[in-house]
Amino acid sequence: MSEKDYTFKEAMLFSQRIGQLSKALWKAVEKDWQLWIKPYDLNINEHHILWISYHLKGASISDVAKFGVMHVSTAFNFSKKLEERELLAFSKRDTDKRNTYVELTPKGEALMQEMIEKYHDTPHAVIDGSMPLKELYGKFPEFLDIMAVIRNIYGDDFMEIFEASFKNIESKFSEKNQIIVATEKNENVL
Amino acid sequence: MSEKDYTFKEAMLFSQRIGQLSKALWKAVEKDWQLWIKPYDLNINEHHILWISYHLKGASISDVAKFGVMHVSTAFNFSKKLEERELLAFSKRDTDKRNTYVELTPKGEALMQEMIEKYHDTPHAVIDGSMPLKELYGKFPEFLDIMAVIRNIYGDDFMEIFEASFKNIESKFSEKNQIIVATEKNENVL
Repeated sequence: MSEKDYTFKEAMLFSQRIGQLSKALWKAVEKDWQLWIKPYDLNINEHHILWISYHLKGASISDVAKFGVMHVSTAFNFSKKLEERELLAFSKRDTDKRNTYVELTPKGEALMQEMIEKYHDTPHAVIDGSMPLKELYGKFPEFLDIMAVIRNIYGDDFMEIFEASFKNIESKFSEKNQIIVATEKNENVL
Repeated sequence: MSEKDYTFKEAMLFSQRIGQLSKALWKAVEKDWQLWIKPYDLNINEHHILWISYHLKGASISDVAKFGVMHVSTAFNFSKKLEERELLAFSKRDTDKRNTYVELTPKGEALMQEMIEKYHDTPHAVIDGSMPLKELYGKFPEFLDIMAVIRNIYGDDFMEIFEASFKNIESKFSEKNQIIVATEKNENVL
């Protein structure tokens, strides 16, 4: 745009709103996240790398950096530390020789699984704080306006990785439910 | 709540959404903010303290800490540095002897005014990223669902400070517009 389609006052009010709320929200998320990962001797960046690798079933370092909103060097250095702890393995893909990929080792996979199972052992202020909206609307808020802003800032690639991680959660939990249903059926037969 | 009113899958999907989007949004806000304050040799915490003091017309250290989402010791230490630079002054209030208050000095006030005037000299990805929503709805998004979540996490006090800062922006810019209107009227008379 060559001309500003808003007044200075609108820009200041909006800047104040998005600045304050994004800081307050992130600090609450960060606190929940730190409490959750505390027993596992991981920092947030390390856990985020494992989390991304888990949900994307392996990812290039540049995808980890993009989706983790961290520098490529940060993504690489922390991935190296996770490799030393045998939680992550580096590889090259035949279809893409130029990028370095990381994927979880069986030990890393087991750790992620354990952490998901222990998710509710620590408090999550953002979940508790969203419950009144869930009760009102019948589902957790989707924050579609924020998602639209993020799509505009980070691009479609970022949102595709976002969607891929959702699909993985959907499918993992469907499998799990099917196993439970199957087990119940077997019990009925016996 | 004694029982969880949501499934594990819902919690995981929501956790993934709010975790990713709050990190991505905050990192974008942080980058814009750093570019804006770069010429002034201030870090984000220091600028945030000045900003809060400016909009609340003086504030207690505990209000600065609460609204700035920082530790009281961080708020205090950075306020001391700003006092050394003669941007901020400490005081006690007769009505509240127990708390320490900070307020901008004339030099601090002038700096805030200059920074507001230069706001558009640096890029603001979050404003650009919100323009399609502004065009669609005729105004910048208000993110009311996120505001509701933050109210539940941080309490009504936090939101009152939020509203006070909005009112200050409203009134400052109304004064300014009145001055512009008054000047124009004088020009017409002359």
